[in-house]
Amino acid sequence: MSKKLMAEFFGTFWLVFGGCGSAIYAAGVADVGIGWLGVSFAFGLTVMTMAYAVGHISGGHFNPAVSLGLMIAGRFDGKELIPYWVAQVVGGLAAGIVLYVIASGAAGFEGAGGFASNGYGDASPQGYGMVAGLVAEVVLTAFFLVIILGATSKGAPAGFAPIAIGLGLTLIHLISIPITNTSVNPARSTGVALFADGPALAQLWLFWVAPLIGAVLGAVIWKAMDTD
Amino acid sequence: MSKKLMAEFFGTFWLVFGGCGSAIYAAGVADVGIGWLGVSFAFGLTVMTMAYAVGHISGGHFNPAVSLGLMIAGRFDGKELIPYWVAQVVGGLAAGIVLYVIASGAAGFEGAGGFASNGYGDASPQGYGMVAGLVAEVVLTAFFLVIILGATSKGAPAGFAPIAIGLGLTLIHLISIPITNTSVNPARSTGVALFADGPALAQLWLFWVAPLIGAVLGAVIWKAMDTD
Amino acid sequence: MSKKLMAEFFGTFWLVFGGCGSAIYAAGVADVGIGWLGVSFAFGLTVMTMAYAVGHISGGHFNPAVSLGLMIAGRFDGKELIPYWVAQVVGGLAAGIVLYVIASGAAGFEGAGGFASNGYGDASPQGYGMVAGLVAEVVLTAFFLVIILGATSKGAPAGFAPIAIGLGLTLIHLISIPITNTSVNPARSTGVALFADGPALAQLWLFWVAPLIGAVLGAVIWKAMDTD
Amino acid sequence: MSKKLMAEFFGTFWLVFGGCGSAIYAAGVADVGIGWLGVSFAFGLTVMTMAYAVGHISGGHFNPAVSLGLMIAGRFDGKELIPYWVAQVVGGLAAGIVLYVIASGAAGFEGAGGFASNGYGDASPQGYGMVAGLVAEVVLTAFFLVIILGATSKGAPAGFAPIAIGLGLTLIHLISIPITNTSVNPARSTGVALFADGPALAQLWLFWVAPLIGAVLGAVIWKAMDTD
Repeated sequence: MSKKLMAEFFGTFWLVFGGCGSAIYAAGVADVGIGWLGVSFAFGLTVMTMAYAVGHISGGHFNPAVSLGLMIAGRFDGKELIPYWVAQVVGGLAAGIVLYVIASGAAGFEGAGGFASNGYGDASPQGYGMVAGLVAEVVLTAFFLVIILGATSKGAPAGFAPIAIGLGLTLIHLISIPITNTSVNPARSTGVALFADGPALAQLWLFWVAPLIGAVLGAVIWKAMDTD
Repeated sequence: MSKKLMAEFFGTFWLVFGGCGSAIYAAGVADVGIGWLGVSFAFGLTVMTMAYAVGHISGGHFNPAVSLGLMIAGRFDGKELIPYWVAQVVGGLAAGIVLYVIASGAAGFEGAGGFASNGYGDASPQGYGMVAGLVAEVVLTAFFLVIILGATSKGAPAGFAPIAIGLGLTLIHLISIPITNTSVNPARSTGVALFADGPALAQLWLFWVAPLIGAVLGAVIWKAMDTD
Repeated sequence: MSKKLMAEFFGTFWLVFGGCGSAIYAAGVADVGIGWLGVSFAFGLTVMTMAYAVGHISGGHFNPAVSLGLMIAGRFDGKELIPYWVAQVVGGLAAGIVLYVIASGAAGFEGAGGFASNGYGDASPQGYGMVAGLVAEVVLTAFFLVIILGATSKGAPAGFAPIAIGLGLTLIHLISIPITNTSVNPARSTGVALFADGPALAQLWLFWVAPLIGAVLGAVIWKAMDTD
Repeated sequence: MSKKLMAEFFGTFWLVFGGCGSAIYAAGVADVGIGWLGVSFAFGLTVMTMAYAVGHISGGHFNPAVSLGLMIAGRFDGKELIPYWVAQVVGGLAAGIVLYVIASGAAGFEGAGGFASNGYGDASPQGYGMVAGLVAEVVLTAFFLVIILGATSKGAPAGFAPIAIGLGLTLIHLISIPITNTSVNPARSTGVALFADGPALAQLWLFWVAPLIGAVLGAVIWKAMDTD
């Protein structure tokens, strides 16, 4: 495995392990639980930390939609797209396994439950339908790509991109956890869907289709504004 | 549409979509909701992320009061003021539409309700009167401009301004959501007032007048301290 | 008034207005209130934002204990100590007035109450006694000075000091709001003590004595470690 | 005591005092308490602030597992390992003493209780067993070292490492407070175990073994990816 793919594997592992782990273990505990605000910070900080740690190795995508959007914008070599996607999905699945091992060690464990999976309709945290979920995922992934492409462009101050991108993912979660439990990242959705009870696998298509469409849209919007 | 105006359109869209969206969808959910702390971070992070992404294209105002204050301080060409204002207000309105489309997809949707609009008196989240709201909006917008002008001045360290400005907006929300639901930005107020139930449109004047007065005041205070 | 003193006046105004304002208006609201976590961020962000905005003008102290500690460490001219203290205290008092004006505009206003003042014994948020309060304020102010002196030393990376110092103040609040409501800053304590109901004025001595002792201690510790 | 060891002593004191102090005093207070989210930020900010303040003096480890991992990765001289470990553990114990002095000054104090100690089984905040605790501590410490080694490598942007590392520790707490109360740092565990009621001392072995194994693992993973 090349160093780039290792970085994508571990970065995506960290994103799914940290983001979904905070949701599974710590979000809903009475009185002192971290709530959706804590989960939002957790997801964002996974990306911020690994972007500083291994961003100079692989680019720090950790997300198939991000890799696609960067390719469309001319920042990423299309020949690497599929290997990156594989490393990301496998990293997400590996995280799902470790999440499950730990979860099963809790007192009174009775199965994975939702396992931080994404969903719409009855599987949406607040009952948002498929169209609402699709619109939200497309719009949010598009802006995620605008932030990524803009904050790493020549005109932006150097070194700050992981802060903008990581906390941008935090912001995206602050908006949309109630709607779809927030994906904008097919590897994150896939990594836990295999373990979740309920319709996560049956609804997984939306969390590939919408982020990928959104990423292309974001790349197109960015190219129209880009002044480099 | 010029690249500058596109950047202002999308930046203001993101500010209203992210800030008001987090308030509408995620703030008041029982147990795990993000509360006003989460909404405060969301507003601040919209500005921080887009200032890093497109700040080098348009200056990253996303707010008619900011554009006015920068003009008064001699940092922004007055000929661009009206085009910027139009792009910002249209961006805010476009966000209002998408916010409504998603909100209407929730289970049990029964209308927009307050829709994160700004207000005073009975429309203030904690019942603060018109004078209290006016004072708060003027003072907070004035300091917002001092932060913006100071953090982007020659004496300040380069590259950090989006952090200071974005988290400055977070701070402003931490203080004043209970008072007026926090505007300091006429485009943000306008973007959702058209959709809200209640007196949001009738009270919209205050959320143009107070931020614009505050912005001029902030620019004057800054010029008196400026050592460049 | 010199530009330096203006910067200290407005910076300390912002610290007291923002930090105490978030506590007075937004902390204890049911369900969506920001709690002590939000107040901790508010205090820290007042310092972070104004340090970026006017730090290059006045040094960005906003706190008599900080000015004293910097003088002891040889970083601040002793001739300026009293003018700085006056500007800081007057800035804090001005903030107290504006905080009161807004607070009195709330529905059902019945007096200032604790008004975010500092206290010990019965006036401590969780009933901590005088000795506990004294120890906490001395230790926390000492570390605040170590952070300030270290993060602004030649060996530290340039430009990041406002983040370290501001979020250091956030951290200090996360620890000690239950103990004394957190001062580490005599100007902050004085600014609201005049308006508060209860023993705030009678206990104000501790919130001058302890932070000043702590600041001297912190300066001494720093000098012992300093490798510049 | 050398300046390096002083920096490690005070840095680890601050980590234990601030992180555990926020947990002991402020986490569980009704309505306004900071919860696990606040504790997570407190731990992270202790490291971020002291890394900016004294990182250029000692390297800013504040953690025996970090010192070991840096040694394995070739970034830290093995002759200094034991002196660093001693300074870190003594710093943590000194913090435990001051934490206890303040805690005993609270109204209705009835003993140290859990005192923010780490544990598994019945001593885990949410009843996670020994294996779950071991897996979590190993995995999280491994990623902590990857973040530390990556963010301080030549390829990473200069100056940002304390943000990545500090907020990385915040993230680690967001995931694992429910599981073990989060250690990833033997000095932190030791500093409060001596004061805690319950099985903290008897379980202390795990919070040395797991972080040290994890640190070695993280160093190995990093070396495999490193492109410098």
